[in-house]
Amino acid sequence: MIIVMRSGASSEQVEKVIDRVHSFGLRTHPIYGVTKTVIGIIGDDKTRVVEKMRGMPGVEDIIPILQPYKFAGREAHPENTVIELEGVKIGTDTVVVIAGPCAVESEEMLLETARSVRKSGAGVLRGGAYKPRTSPYSFQGLGEEALQFLARAREETGLPIITEVTDPRNVELVCRYADILQVGARNMQNFVLLTEVGKSGHPVMLKRGPSSTIKDLLLAAEYVIIEGNRDVLLCERGVTTFETYTRNTLDLSAVPVLKELSHLPVIVDPAHATGRNSLVEPMALAAVAAGADGIMVEVHPDPDAALCDGQQALALDEFERMMGKVKAIAEIVGRNL
Amino acid sequence: MIIVMRSGASSEQVEKVIDRVHSFGLRTHPIYGVTKTVIGIIGDDKTRVVEKMRGMPGVEDIIPILQPYKFAGREAHPENTVIELEGVKIGTDTVVVIAGPCAVESEEMLLETARSVRKSGAGVLRGGAYKPRTSPYSFQGLGEEALQFLARAREETGLPIITEVTDPRNVELVCRYADILQVGARNMQNFVLLTEVGKSGHPVMLKRGPSSTIKDLLLAAEYVIIEGNRDVLLCERGVTTFETYTRNTLDLSAVPVLKELSHLPVIVDPAHATGRNSLVEPMALAAVAAGADGIMVEVHPDPDAALCDGQQALALDEFERMMGKVKAIAEIVGRNL
Amino acid sequence: MIIVMRSGASSEQVEKVIDRVHSFGLRTHPIYGVTKTVIGIIGDDKTRVVEKMRGMPGVEDIIPILQPYKFAGREAHPENTVIELEGVKIGTDTVVVIAGPCAVESEEMLLETARSVRKSGAGVLRGGAYKPRTSPYSFQGLGEEALQFLARAREETGLPIITEVTDPRNVELVCRYADILQVGARNMQNFVLLTEVGKSGHPVMLKRGPSSTIKDLLLAAEYVIIEGNRDVLLCERGVTTFETYTRNTLDLSAVPVLKELSHLPVIVDPAHATGRNSLVEPMALAAVAAGADGIMVEVHPDPDAALCDGQQALALDEFERMMGKVKAIAEIVGRNL
Amino acid sequence: MIIVMRSGASSEQVEKVIDRVHSFGLRTHPIYGVTKTVIGIIGDDKTRVVEKMRGMPGVEDIIPILQPYKFAGREAHPENTVIELEGVKIGTDTVVVIAGPCAVESEEMLLETARSVRKSGAGVLRGGAYKPRTSPYSFQGLGEEALQFLARAREETGLPIITEVTDPRNVELVCRYADILQVGARNMQNFVLLTEVGKSGHPVMLKRGPSSTIKDLLLAAEYVIIEGNRDVLLCERGVTTFETYTRNTLDLSAVPVLKELSHLPVIVDPAHATGRNSLVEPMALAAVAAGADGIMVEVHPDPDAALCDGQQALALDEFERMMGKVKAIAEIVGRNL
Repeated sequence: MIIVMRSGASSEQVEKVIDRVHSFGLRTHPIYGVTKTVIGIIGDDKTRVVEKMRGMPGVEDIIPILQPYKFAGREAHPENTVIELEGVKIGTDTVVVIAGPCAVESEEMLLETARSVRKSGAGVLRGGAYKPRTSPYSFQGLGEEALQFLARAREETGLPIITEVTDPRNVELVCRYADILQVGARNMQNFVLLTEVGKSGHPVMLKRGPSSTIKDLLLAAEYVIIEGNRDVLLCERGVTTFETYTRNTLDLSAVPVLKELSHLPVIVDPAHATGRNSLVEPMALAAVAAGADGIMVEVHPDPDAALCDGQQALALDEFERMMGKVKAIAEIVGRNL
Repeated sequence: MIIVMRSGASSEQVEKVIDRVHSFGLRTHPIYGVTKTVIGIIGDDKTRVVEKMRGMPGVEDIIPILQPYKFAGREAHPENTVIELEGVKIGTDTVVVIAGPCAVESEEMLLETARSVRKSGAGVLRGGAYKPRTSPYSFQGLGEEALQFLARAREETGLPIITEVTDPRNVELVCRYADILQVGARNMQNFVLLTEVGKSGHPVMLKRGPSSTIKDLLLAAEYVIIEGNRDVLLCERGVTTFETYTRNTLDLSAVPVLKELSHLPVIVDPAHATGRNSLVEPMALAAVAAGADGIMVEVHPDPDAALCDGQQALALDEFERMMGKVKAIAEIVGRNL
Repeated sequence: MIIVMRSGASSEQVEKVIDRVHSFGLRTHPIYGVTKTVIGIIGDDKTRVVEKMRGMPGVEDIIPILQPYKFAGREAHPENTVIELEGVKIGTDTVVVIAGPCAVESEEMLLETARSVRKSGAGVLRGGAYKPRTSPYSFQGLGEEALQFLARAREETGLPIITEVTDPRNVELVCRYADILQVGARNMQNFVLLTEVGKSGHPVMLKRGPSSTIKDLLLAAEYVIIEGNRDVLLCERGVTTFETYTRNTLDLSAVPVLKELSHLPVIVDPAHATGRNSLVEPMALAAVAAGADGIMVEVHPDPDAALCDGQQALALDEFERMMGKVKAIAEIVGRNL
Repeated sequence: MIIVMRSGASSEQVEKVIDRVHSFGLRTHPIYGVTKTVIGIIGDDKTRVVEKMRGMPGVEDIIPILQPYKFAGREAHPENTVIELEGVKIGTDTVVVIAGPCAVESEEMLLETARSVRKSGAGVLRGGAYKPRTSPYSFQGLGEEALQFLARAREETGLPIITEVTDPRNVELVCRYADILQVGARNMQNFVLLTEVGKSGHPVMLKRGPSSTIKDLLLAAEYVIIEGNRDVLLCERGVTTFETYTRNTLDLSAVPVLKELSHLPVIVDPAHATGRNSLVEPMALAAVAAGADGIMVEVHPDPDAALCDGQQALALDEFERMMGKVKAIAEIVGRNL
């Protein structure tokens, strides 16, 4: 860390700051510049204790030099993390496509969707059993019944399953059915839930919170990893901005940034970000071109009749058509499907 | 609701849309304009079913006319909600000041703070037992021990207590000690937790999520209220913006807006919004001038030594000085302390 | 337009509103719903006069139905606008690549860059003569001398030229040298400048302002078009958000949205949006995958020595390598280079 | 400045960076930490040259230590700047109220407003002659005729006049009539205009751009000051956020922040920020409580009939009522009216 003193700081103030740092067992290295004094701190990372010195007289700023996350960062783990499920690996040269309905509505619709997306090349089946909704008056999901439908769809199609968990008390139950646990954007900083999914040992897909920075997302991953669970997927799904035409603003530059900063696989969800069916394909293709390890798409046999987010789901044939282009673009950026 | 058809929409498309609306048991009232056709929908609010028509051919937009929240809105409940605790009422002409340390660090520091803020005119004691922190490496609170300290402080000072609950499994435990449950900003859309605190029957203070609109906040309150718990306080604590000098941007205009739209009391937390000690007093005074029903302030006997957010806490004497001005401004806007 | 009355509005208030609308020579079509009354307005678009009724007693909201722009929208002009310059057409199946240095620093560096990017397949040469900079202490450009260098580069390479104009008094001068005038993001709502470049008759590339919505961008284009100048290119270059790792957040979903709403060509500038060299290629590829009509890239013979934004420029060989992938992706989405 | 090297940077890379810094005539002071090497730079501020080293191998970050503005900062000028006009001083203990219509519509309405606001205690008369509007179809102002009306209103009431200038070619003309030139939010980074108003010698009120940080605002002020014109007023008028209920989000914490960082007077415009008449008074009172040196309010004899922004204007009697409270709050924070 580096402590920047104000330009008018007295030498007494500088000394007091140095003494305080020493009291934490850290060494200092002051630089007396023309206008300002800057104090470098040497020793183990003690961000927490030094941060508290912000209020001291003469202190202008405290600048951290080390990244605040350890296990989620590429510095600690230079090679890509690969998550291995039965039948599919995530984080390799193969771009993984996660597809299925926003919410599981019935066994038939789920099976029909699962069969179709499998045929079109999807690698993982998604389907919501517990739906966090902004309004209490919206459809909240079928719960455990939906989990059972998902398990049957896996049995029939062989596709591993991802579904969202919203309640720490449900983690065990959801683990009985799902291959990957999804933590939704609004729960990205639900630290109680992060700890619980971390303990579960199941792979976890963490959706970026709508106002979470890339650093916040990596710190949320850190919460999962420090429980001993390194199988974390990061998912960009749009951030909150002033633009109202799309539901959120998809931050595709987060893809190469996350690949630089972290070893964890990066998935993009173009549907939730944009909220509009017609934008799903262009944004899915763009995500693969930008280097995503996978995409997650909502597919529904009859989007107009969907109980949840039908306006952003693809029909089965639309999905199939898109997959041809996804494959072609993956190859241009040195990947495959 | 109103459905706006595209300018080139065919009369066949218009008819299909009308038929679909009728199939939901709703009446329609089309207006054939010069450029566009607009279809008014009459009947009970069926936002959910009509929303799903967004994908239909020819539909340009679907515009809700009714507010999406029912019980949190002033239309349904024109008079101010008053929350009565032993010794203090919130939502009346009296501005309530909630004060105490960010985190409860020890019994002594809590008692010292409680006595002092009580003397300075605070009406409620705050203190964190469970701290949600962006980094897993930050201090996470003392847990139940802190709750016990809080209970003793209430015993001694008579001040009712507010503390944050982060885990649905802890709601019952926290209710044994606290008078008001706080739901933090990052949990504002943790619907599982909202439902649980709703069932508890305890008054709940809901902090606005950093990227939540005013409408989202009222919908979160709705989650609590539909469990039968009308005692909800709304708390503005800053929203996420591009400005980095302050931690968040305090949206003080949300105060009069919330007072217009809702009957629930509105509290302002100037410390978390700004993250800087020197901004707490000016923003606290501004909050009262803007019509807030209360303010929430972090006070610490020794801010420099605080284990959590010391840089935004007031010292005991700073708090006392501020309270004189708070009182004077309250009187000018027709309130008291 | 539609006027929504408050739920408690009296029939007298409704009548007064209707009378006011009639006084503007417009017809009304009220819908008396269960909870609220809604008044449809029929006639020519008189947004301006009706907007002023917002303050009237009983009025809750006024909702425009027609888009506020006329000539920039696809409704008025369903076919794509094609901008024809000597040697290049913009807005066709061919993806146009605009390349060159951020600022023109000398004749030699410009010529070297121009020859190289032309060889790699660029269609237009860019180079800044007048640089708007956040700090008055940053390099502000060489002015007319740079324009002369650009003209010589065009002579030698045949590449048409785009350069920024910042001062309405300079429009005539810049037109003497440049083929396309660029209006920078910070001037997107400099309506005086928009009017002047509109009058110039030269094609204009309008960069989206950092906090401008898609609608604002189209309204800015409207300012240019109503001067009789339909040759407007729209450029997405990132919007202001809370994320600080990248300079701005590139809003790639704006590309398909703008293609839906407008007939004007859409260009993407991945360098200014991200501010980081390593993100330029992935975002350029993503832009083409998302359907952009062109991309604009900063290229410099020696990025480390650049006088302006070197950290986001590509070296000549990096640009060449990228162009191969750009071409391949263009073909997958049905375009060419 | 401080250069932070990556954790894996080789000693050769460190040396090359140090050599480059020396080549600029600056001294270095490296700190070899446990994980990372950090290079302090000593000498005159050469932000521009050092910034260009961002691309060098091994460099992780370059952190400026000095503020990028010199003359706008309080470090260079610890005492408050006071702007003296005939009859009024801005930047003293007296809170200045700037009032008048959004746009000058006619001589009579302006005179009526001027007389009334003067009687209620306003210190400066505002009125728009040139209106920058998002839509080209909105009312754009009366131009020079409006300036003549303003001059007559000053003659009659003695109130100094502020009006917006949008075109560098008009600065001289506007200076003939106005006492203070206003640069609008959308022109805050119109550097051509900033330079021109800087040269004019007239006091300039600079409105914060909707996506401009506090630092950007001070850099814009720097553009004016380096032309020799130190009489700059800063105006907070709301920033762009995701909240749509208000037009912008008024950032009142910017008031104490600007007072800390700068010596320039700070004005708050509550009407443009919120876009709603009912929010003007609470936000005006909050601004004064937060320490603003002045407020700017739109007042109109008949807001319902206003040609511009009527929904956010106060009627004459509403303004008068508000002024009583403004005065009372000013006194509590140690000011007067």
